[in-house]
Amino acid sequence: VTSNTTLGFIGLGKMGQPMALNLLRAGYRLRIYNRTAEKAAPLTAQGAELVAKPAEVAGPGALVVTMVANDQALEEITLGQGGIGEALQRGGIHLSMSTVSPETARRLARYHQQKGAAYVAAPVFGRPEAAAMQKLWICEAGPQAAKESVRPILGALGQGVFDFGEDPPAANVVKLAGNFLIASALEAMGEAMALAEKNGVSRSSFATMIGQTLFACPIYQNYGKMIASQTYEPAGFQLSLGLKDVNLVLGIGTAVNVPMPLASLVRDRMLSSMAQGRQDVDWSGLALRVSEDAGLK
Amino acid sequence: VTSNTTLGFIGLGKMGQPMALNLLRAGYRLRIYNRTAEKAAPLTAQGAELVAKPAEVAGPGALVVTMVANDQALEEITLGQGGIGEALQRGGIHLSMSTVSPETARRLARYHQQKGAAYVAAPVFGRPEAAAMQKLWICEAGPQAAKESVRPILGALGQGVFDFGEDPPAANVVKLAGNFLIASALEAMGEAMALAEKNGVSRSSFATMIGQTLFACPIYQNYGKMIASQTYEPAGFQLSLGLKDVNLVLGIGTAVNVPMPLASLVRDRMLSSMAQGRQDVDWSGLALRVSEDAGLK
Amino acid sequence: VTSNTTLGFIGLGKMGQPMALNLLRAGYRLRIYNRTAEKAAPLTAQGAELVAKPAEVAGPGALVVTMVANDQALEEITLGQGGIGEALQRGGIHLSMSTVSPETARRLARYHQQKGAAYVAAPVFGRPEAAAMQKLWICEAGPQAAKESVRPILGALGQGVFDFGEDPPAANVVKLAGNFLIASALEAMGEAMALAEKNGVSRSSFATMIGQTLFACPIYQNYGKMIASQTYEPAGFQLSLGLKDVNLVLGIGTAVNVPMPLASLVRDRMLSSMAQGRQDVDWSGLALRVSEDAGLK
Amino acid sequence: VTSNTTLGFIGLGKMGQPMALNLLRAGYRLRIYNRTAEKAAPLTAQGAELVAKPAEVAGPGALVVTMVANDQALEEITLGQGGIGEALQRGGIHLSMSTVSPETARRLARYHQQKGAAYVAAPVFGRPEAAAMQKLWICEAGPQAAKESVRPILGALGQGVFDFGEDPPAANVVKLAGNFLIASALEAMGEAMALAEKNGVSRSSFATMIGQTLFACPIYQNYGKMIASQTYEPAGFQLSLGLKDVNLVLGIGTAVNVPMPLASLVRDRMLSSMAQGRQDVDWSGLALRVSEDAGLK
Repeated sequence: VTSNTTLGFIGLGKMGQPMALNLLRAGYRLRIYNRTAEKAAPLTAQGAELVAKPAEVAGPGALVVTMVANDQALEEITLGQGGIGEALQRGGIHLSMSTVSPETARRLARYHQQKGAAYVAAPVFGRPEAAAMQKLWICEAGPQAAKESVRPILGALGQGVFDFGEDPPAANVVKLAGNFLIASALEAMGEAMALAEKNGVSRSSFATMIGQTLFACPIYQNYGKMIASQTYEPAGFQLSLGLKDVNLVLGIGTAVNVPMPLASLVRDRMLSSMAQGRQDVDWSGLALRVSEDAGLK
Repeated sequence: VTSNTTLGFIGLGKMGQPMALNLLRAGYRLRIYNRTAEKAAPLTAQGAELVAKPAEVAGPGALVVTMVANDQALEEITLGQGGIGEALQRGGIHLSMSTVSPETARRLARYHQQKGAAYVAAPVFGRPEAAAMQKLWICEAGPQAAKESVRPILGALGQGVFDFGEDPPAANVVKLAGNFLIASALEAMGEAMALAEKNGVSRSSFATMIGQTLFACPIYQNYGKMIASQTYEPAGFQLSLGLKDVNLVLGIGTAVNVPMPLASLVRDRMLSSMAQGRQDVDWSGLALRVSEDAGLK
Repeated sequence: VTSNTTLGFIGLGKMGQPMALNLLRAGYRLRIYNRTAEKAAPLTAQGAELVAKPAEVAGPGALVVTMVANDQALEEITLGQGGIGEALQRGGIHLSMSTVSPETARRLARYHQQKGAAYVAAPVFGRPEAAAMQKLWICEAGPQAAKESVRPILGALGQGVFDFGEDPPAANVVKLAGNFLIASALEAMGEAMALAEKNGVSRSSFATMIGQTLFACPIYQNYGKMIASQTYEPAGFQLSLGLKDVNLVLGIGTAVNVPMPLASLVRDRMLSSMAQGRQDVDWSGLALRVSEDAGLK
Repeated sequence: VTSNTTLGFIGLGKMGQPMALNLLRAGYRLRIYNRTAEKAAPLTAQGAELVAKPAEVAGPGALVVTMVANDQALEEITLGQGGIGEALQRGGIHLSMSTVSPETARRLARYHQQKGAAYVAAPVFGRPEAAAMQKLWICEAGPQAAKESVRPILGALGQGVFDFGEDPPAANVVKLAGNFLIASALEAMGEAMALAEKNGVSRSSFATMIGQTLFACPIYQNYGKMIASQTYEPAGFQLSLGLKDVNLVLGIGTAVNVPMPLASLVRDRMLSSMAQGRQDVDWSGLALRVSEDAGLK
C-alpha cells in the first residue's frame, strides 16, 4: 500500500472523521461511506468520493478501513446486504479499527478468510483530539502479510503500533483490557479523593501530587483533574460507552472463566450512574457516585 | 535548621538506614537510636552517636526524625518510658516520617503541642533504593513554622515535597490514599493480565504496551513487569505491610463513613494471599491469587 | 382443560420426566417429544405417545407444556423448523415451565400472540425429588384466560401457584430473582462457616443452630448441611447451571440499570469454581472456593 | 443455681430490661445496676434491689448476668474501678450475654479465671419482643461446670440453648456470624426486589412468595415485608449497631485471614447508608440505598 492508493473508509464519527482526514493528508485517495451521509462533507471537500453502500467503497482486492460505533454496526456494514464482505474478495484487506468484542473479530475474520480476504484487527487508544494529531496508540493482530500491507496506513494515523500476533481477536482483548485498566483507575481515584475530602484534604492538591509523582502519566493527570474538580462535561468518552466496553470485558472473562471482581465493581458503579441519568457524562463521572455514597455534595 | 545541626534519628530499618546516611552526608550530626542496636554500625562508622534510649537522641528544643515500622512502634518511642515525648519540650520538633494512621498522628501532635513542641507529619513514597538516591516523594503537614524549619532536612532526603496544610493527620491520609491507589493498580493489572493470558495474549507484551502508552509511569512499568512475569520475590514491600496499610485506609473510611469497595476488594485479595502463606512476598504478589482464581498455573 | 384431555409435553430431562409422569397419573393423555428419544421409554410404558418433531405434539388449539434446559433449547423447539410455534394456532396455549430469560419469554409470547395462541410463563422452584412428589412451587404470568385453563395442570405438578400478572416475563424475573436469593445464601453460609471453622467452631454445630433458629427453612437447612460437611456431589443442581442463571440475573439488571453487587460477587465466585474444574458439582460447592480463599483444606 | 438465688444483673437497656423482668418472674432475686439508674424503676417495683456500682451486685461466689451495649461498656463494668471483676472471686460466674467481640470475651475470661471465677459467653438472637416472651435463642460457651450452673437461668430467658464448647469466644463468633447471615439476607432481598420492581413485578408479591416457599422462616418473612414496603422505622435494631457488628465480623476475619467479600459488601452498603444520615433506621434500611442505586424512589 503506497500513499496514492485508493482506500475504502467507513465510519465518520468523532474518531473516524479525523482519521480519514489524516489519510487524505497523507496522500491516500478515499472512497467513503457513512450511515448519515451529511457527515461526509468535510471529506468530500478534500477530494474523497462518497458512495451509497458499504460494498461500493472497495473492489475485490481493495483495502477497507472501518471505524464504527459497536459490534452491531460493524457486523452490518460487513455481513449485511450491500456490505463489504461480498465486495472484499481474494487479496482484499479489512482493517478493522473499532472497539468491538473478540468474538465479533473472530467471526468476521473467519468470514473474510473463506473469501480469500484478510481481517486485521487494529483498535486504538486515544480520544478524538489524539486522532486529529496522529497520536493514537494502535494494537494490531492479524495475518502477517496483511499487517505489513497496512503498516503505512497505521503510520499515518498513530504514534505507535503494538503487535499481538496473527489471531485478530487478540488485539480486541488488549484494547478492552486497556479500557478496563482506565476505568479501574477512575474508580480508585474516586474513592481516594472522597476519602481525602472527608478528611479535610484538598482534592486538587491530592490530584496534583499523584500526577507528579507515583502516577505521572496522562490517564491519572487528566482524569485526576476532572475527578478533583468534579467536572464531567463535556464528555470525551461517554459513560454509556464505557459501560458497553466493561460489559464486553466481563463477557470475555465469563467465556474463559476469569473472574474479574474489579470489573464487576466498575460495572455496578456505572450502572448506578446510568440509573441517576448520567449516561452522557464523561465516564470519569462514575466518581460522582462514589462521592454521593460518601454523603458528599 | 542548618546542616551542621545535631538531629535525633530513630528507626534504622530498610528505609531509615539510607535516610540517616543521607543526612550524615548532607552534613548533619546525628544522635541515633534503634531497638536492635547492631543496625547502627554503618552510621556510627560515619560519625553518628548511638544512644540507649529514644529520649537521649534529643534535648528540649531539639529536632528528632522518626522512621519506624508502624503505629505501635511510633507510640512506644514517643509516649513510652524513656520516649522522646518527655525529652522534646518547648521549641522541639518531631519530624515523623513513618506510615501511620491519621489517628496516631492526631494523638501525638496533641501531646507534643501540650509540651510546647511541634509534630510535623512527613510520610514518604518510595522504596529503599529511592531513599538511598534521595528520590523520595514527601507529603508534609504540620505547623507552618516547624515545616519551614525542617525543609532543608526534607531537601536532603527527597526529590520533592507536597504540602497539605497545618493539620498533621492530613499528610497521613494522603500517604495512605496513595498506597491504596497503588494497590488498586496491582489488582487491576492482575485481572487484566489473567484475562489476556487466558485469551492467548502474551502477558509481557501487554505490560509493555500499557507501560509505554496509557500508563507510562513507574508504578505501572515496574509492577507491570513483576506481574507479567509473576516474579514476587525478593519483596520490595511485603504483602503483610501492604495489608496493614489497606486496613488503615479502611479504618479511616469507616470513621468518616466513606465506603471504599475497591479497598475492600484489595483487602480481601490480600487476606486470601496471606491465607496461602504469602505474607512475605512483594505486595504485587496479590496478582498470583487473581491468576489462581482464573485457574492459571 | 380437564384430566382426560391430550396435552403436548416437550423436555424429558431430570425435571421434565417426573413432571410428565405426574400428568399421566393425573389422567392426562400425553403426546411427548424429546431430543434424545430414549428418555421417553418410562413414559411410553405408561401410555404416552412419542412423536418425531415438536410440532407433532399438538394441533392448532392444543395445550403444550415445555420443560427444557435453556433459552436456546426453548427457542429451537418453538421457533425452529418443525417447532410448536407453527402448530399452535388460534386457541392454543404454550405452558412454558423452563427457567429462561424474561427476554426470551417476551419474544415467544409476542410470537404466539400474533398467531392467536397464548404463552403462559410458569417456571418452578424445586429439585427433581420435589417434582416427583408434586411439591414444586410455581410462579405464573400470562393472559388471564390461559392461566385459568392451565390451573388444573399446575395443580397436578406443584403444591402452590403464585400469580404475577398478565405479562409473561414477570414470572421469569421472579424465578431468576429467587435463584439469586438462594445463591446469595450459599455464599453467605460459605463465608460464615469458614469464619467459624478458623475460629475453632464446629461447622456442623453452626449449621444446626442456624437451621433450627433464625433460618428454619429448607434452603438453609439442606444446603447448610452440605456446606458444613463440604459434600457437593452428587449435584442436585449443577454449578454450571447456577452460573447460567446468575448470568441471566445480571443480564436483566444491566438491561434496566439495576446494579447487583451481590449477584456480581456470586458470579465471580462461580467463575472461580468453574476455573478449578467444578462445573459439575452442586452449586453449593461454590463454598469450597470460599474455604480455599481462607487457606482451609 | 435454683430459682430463689440472688443474681446480679447489669444492663437495663431494650434487651436487658425484659430479660431481668423474666428472671424476677422465674423467682430469682436480683441485685441490679445500670449506668442511668432511672431505667431500674420497673424492676425495683418488682422487688429488685438497685445498687450504685457494678461490684455491688455480687459477692465473691455470686453469679452475675450482664447485657450491655458494646465491648467498651462490658470492659468498663468488668475491669473498671468498682467493676465486677474485683468482686467476683473463687466460685463466681460472669454470665455475659452481650454481643461483643471474641477478643473481649477471651480477655475477660482470662481475667476471671485468674481470680478463680468463670466466664460464660451466652450471646442471644432475638429482638426485645422476643426477649419479653422468653423466646431468645442463646449460644453458649464456657467451662462445663459453670454452663451447668447457669442452665436454669438461660431456661428462664430463651426458648433454646446451643452449646459451642468450653472456649467462651466461640459463642461470640457464632453470634456475630449469625448477624452477618441476617445482614447478607437483607442485601440479597434488597437487590432482588429492586430488580423485581424495575421489571414491573410487585415487591410485596415477591416477598410473599419467597416467604411462603423457599424461605419460610422469620428472617425472610419479617424483613421481607419491611423491605417490600420500604418501612424502616421504628428501628428494631439500628443500622449503626448492625454496622458495629459487621465491623466486628470483619475484624475477626482479618485476624485469622478469612476474606469475607460479602461482609465487605454489606459493610460498604451500611457506610453509604450512614453517610445519608440513616444511622437510626432499622438495619434492613440498607435496602433503601440499593433502590437508590437503581434509580428508584
